[in-house]
Amino acid sequence: MTTGAQHILTGLADAGIELIFTNPGTTEIYFVDALGKAPVPRPVLTLTEAVAAGAADGAARISGQPTALLLHLGPGLANAIAYLHNAKRAHSPIVVVVGDHSQGVADQDPPLASDIDSLAGTFSKAVIHVTKNEHPRHSAARAGYLAIDATPGIVTLIVPSDLSWSDTSDVSRLQRPPIPPLKTPEATLERASAALTEPDGTAVIVGGDLLRVEGHETLERLTRRQNLTVWANTFPARMDRGLGTPLVRRLPYLPEMAISALENTRRVVIAGGAKPVPFFAYPHLPDRLVADDCEIITLTSDPSAAISSIATLMPNEKEPTLSSSTSREPATKANDGAALNPANFASLIAELLPADTIVVDESNTLGLNLEEATATAPVHTWLPALTGGAIGHGLGLAIGAAIAAPERHVLALIADGSSLYTPQALWNHASEALNITTVILSNRSYGILNFELARLGSDAETEGAKRLLSLSPPSIDHTRLATGFGVPATRASTVGQLIDALASAWRSRGPSLIEAEFL
Amino acid sequence: MTTGAQHILTGLADAGIELIFTNPGTTEIYFVDALGKAPVPRPVLTLTEAVAAGAADGAARISGQPTALLLHLGPGLANAIAYLHNAKRAHSPIVVVVGDHSQGVADQDPPLASDIDSLAGTFSKAVIHVTKNEHPRHSAARAGYLAIDATPGIVTLIVPSDLSWSDTSDVSRLQRPPIPPLKTPEATLERASAALTEPDGTAVIVGGDLLRVEGHETLERLTRRQNLTVWANTFPARMDRGLGTPLVRRLPYLPEMAISALENTRRVVIAGGAKPVPFFAYPHLPDRLVADDCEIITLTSDPSAAISSIATLMPNEKEPTLSSSTSREPATKANDGAALNPANFASLIAELLPADTIVVDESNTLGLNLEEATATAPVHTWLPALTGGAIGHGLGLAIGAAIAAPERHVLALIADGSSLYTPQALWNHASEALNITTVILSNRSYGILNFELARLGSDAETEGAKRLLSLSPPSIDHTRLATGFGVPATRASTVGQLIDALASAWRSRGPSLIEAEFL
Repeated sequence: MTTGAQHILTGLADAGIELIFTNPGTTEIYFVDALGKAPVPRPVLTLTEAVAAGAADGAARISGQPTALLLHLGPGLANAIAYLHNAKRAHSPIVVVVGDHSQGVADQDPPLASDIDSLAGTFSKAVIHVTKNEHPRHSAARAGYLAIDATPGIVTLIVPSDLSWSDTSDVSRLQRPPIPPLKTPEATLERASAALTEPDGTAVIVGGDLLRVEGHETLERLTRRQNLTVWANTFPARMDRGLGTPLVRRLPYLPEMAISALENTRRVVIAGGAKPVPFFAYPHLPDRLVADDCEIITLTSDPSAAISSIATLMPNEKEPTLSSSTSREPATKANDGAALNPANFASLIAELLPADTIVVDESNTLGLNLEEATATAPVHTWLPALTGGAIGHGLGLAIGAAIAAPERHVLALIADGSSLYTPQALWNHASEALNITTVILSNRSYGILNFELARLGSDAETEGAKRLLSLSPPSIDHTRLATGFGVPATRASTVGQLIDALASAWRSRGPSLIEAEFL
Repeated sequence: MTTGAQHILTGLADAGIELIFTNPGTTEIYFVDALGKAPVPRPVLTLTEAVAAGAADGAARISGQPTALLLHLGPGLANAIAYLHNAKRAHSPIVVVVGDHSQGVADQDPPLASDIDSLAGTFSKAVIHVTKNEHPRHSAARAGYLAIDATPGIVTLIVPSDLSWSDTSDVSRLQRPPIPPLKTPEATLERASAALTEPDGTAVIVGGDLLRVEGHETLERLTRRQNLTVWANTFPARMDRGLGTPLVRRLPYLPEMAISALENTRRVVIAGGAKPVPFFAYPHLPDRLVADDCEIITLTSDPSAAISSIATLMPNEKEPTLSSSTSREPATKANDGAALNPANFASLIAELLPADTIVVDESNTLGLNLEEATATAPVHTWLPALTGGAIGHGLGLAIGAAIAAPERHVLALIADGSSLYTPQALWNHASEALNITTVILSNRSYGILNFELARLGSDAETEGAKRLLSLSPPSIDHTRLATGFGVPATRASTVGQLIDALASAWRSRGPSLIEAEFL
């Protein structure tokens, strides 16, 4: 016999899904059975759904292929939502399979019943219910194809348990529907073309393919023009960057700095990025990063194609960018005994970074110097964790990145507060023997919130408020957490110790963790 | 000046809220400021929202008072939903305060924007938006009063950041509205009265007050009648029980056992419990635990009051129950070297349990013998974690229980798979110096899913499927996780070792963890 669950796995594979991250429950037991028999997709067990969601996002961002999750009813799905929110903002193609109650039990309001549709609606571009009206293989393939159409995103597939266990006859593969390419209206292209050649006042916000190696040639047509300022969003899904690549800076996180960066901008051309928006409102700041009358021109088609089609973009070159010109200077080793600080940490990472590394970045306040310092490091891929602002994504994201690119190094730079949302992810670093070096940037507090508190004025910095943002006492020993999950770990509080620890980590394959103390 | 955030805390305190568990973000920074200055409610920082939700539920279940959560936008709220789902099923009174974007930024779809109302709607009895149309102190008090009215539950209060920072004039306290008591219709009471005196075929499912010390006298009128079978649900919110109390068994988890327990039941009287419903559907079992024509009579009023009002319930006594008669026999110490198994583990816990302990139970498959064994232990409170079936609740639940009852011992019995959803909770066990002894019941697998897999038949037990339910390799060292979070820990794999470890834990106050290996 062939169960519905088996057909659904086949349908996911039809759509090109090779990986399925899971934390299953009883309503998914037929999927567990089917996964034990099917060669594809390959299942990866995680200890919590939050980690599974982070991993699926990481695999999708690195492979460019859709990945899947298998989660348990409403509560299991809920545990994944924060990082599915980040994945949604990263436009990652993901199919979330949820094992639901069969109708006969659901009608009685059993303990685990909840409103799965409402939960899924918050992050899904579509929610598909497996019913008797469509073969489960086709429903699954349809979900997969939809996840990776012209506007990639998350599709949730809800499977009642009776349809996962039903013996169902075979059916042939559902063909991938044609994907009509997105078009930017002609008038918008003309407007963009004019804006890109205005002598000043035009900013371009790039994203998508333009930030990947394959888009760099097109990107350079923008970055080398004198009249343009070119930005990525603060937390884009992925940036291939480093020595010799076109230099694109990310919009600053703090609204006052972003407002300053975009000062005098009268036109913004959106080429694969998102509109410039502040992360948060502040009583003393305007709600907008650009003037109310600033024109926003959005290229809705593939950004590389759209920019390439604008033939008027010719030379008019500015000084070659730092990134494409400056060679690296070896950092002095004179201060090996120096305590770690954000500046020497960033220099050190930039100097030691192996070529082709994937850097998962959730370094937050302690990582503020990294962007500039690593601009001249060997070419690497930067994966900002916080595409949607949900903290704690990085350790899971690294899992997916490492599985999707087993030949590459992954360096996960994770602030201590962030790491403590999902320390369970470290178990997968070990259980899958992943090539991930994790650096915990430890200042034993929620740095960004301390910063925000300080901005409220000294009256706000009461002992009570500061204690509420402190991760000690007791101090958390991240090396013990790591070794408890099977990841070898060490501690570094000076430049020299960190250099040695990184060298040691990179000499061998497999996971390791370094607790870098900024104290 | 007095900010909206300060007024909201005052409003929560007006409604009797003394504790607020939090994992704040930038939209809650004015709450952080306010919490640093306000004496009440007392804030407790947790490392993830899931732990905060568990703790709020634990405090509410033990204190009977409303508690609060302070969470960050949609993703922070999402991280709490699984355990708010359990809290909803436990009817715990909780106010969830969510710091939202101000409208001016929300309109621009900033990275953290998501559909908070849809998320909150899945577990809330009401969602209240703080607006300019009502004073924030009053909105907060209204939320608190609503959470603890005649049908306690969760109320979500959404606070736009500009209303949390606005300087707002004072206002007098909102009076608690009168709470009209719930009434059971007279006809239903008569029907129940008749059913309770039928010679056979009547089962009673009790909950709420009837399972607490204050309801035991009324409960005994049911448990001592020969003609009735009296049950609690599988995972009630709270049971005060032990030697000398009326014995009430919990409906078995497995549907075949529950069906057998309710065989020949023609009437079910619901007195504070929930209708008997299977946790899950199975292909070889009926969807219902009782016959389709079984009459369900639900007492909608306070169950103690309703039962008390049924004057016809007079003697007709059955044999005194085990619990109210049998004294405890000391366990033999002959087999100190025996490996731990569910049977000797349960005997040992029953024998050693200090009087008045709160037992947080998420022991799952390894704890199957506990219910019967502990029925004759000294009077204690049993807190089943899985009221709504969402795994991983126990370590957080213990925090709230211990804070609400600082003079009592808390014993948290947590299966290893469960503990790994929320190991961060251990940090609070240490940071608040809580009187919690955690026993991790370790079999290095998801026992319940292995059981379900085995039930599918030998064909399902492929290596791939079994590996997908295994928590090793690598084996997780729970003592390292615990000490990493600041909780002293030890390991026990024999009866003697566990006896010694528990004795040592109970000799001193403060947290400890024992990894009990069932291997």
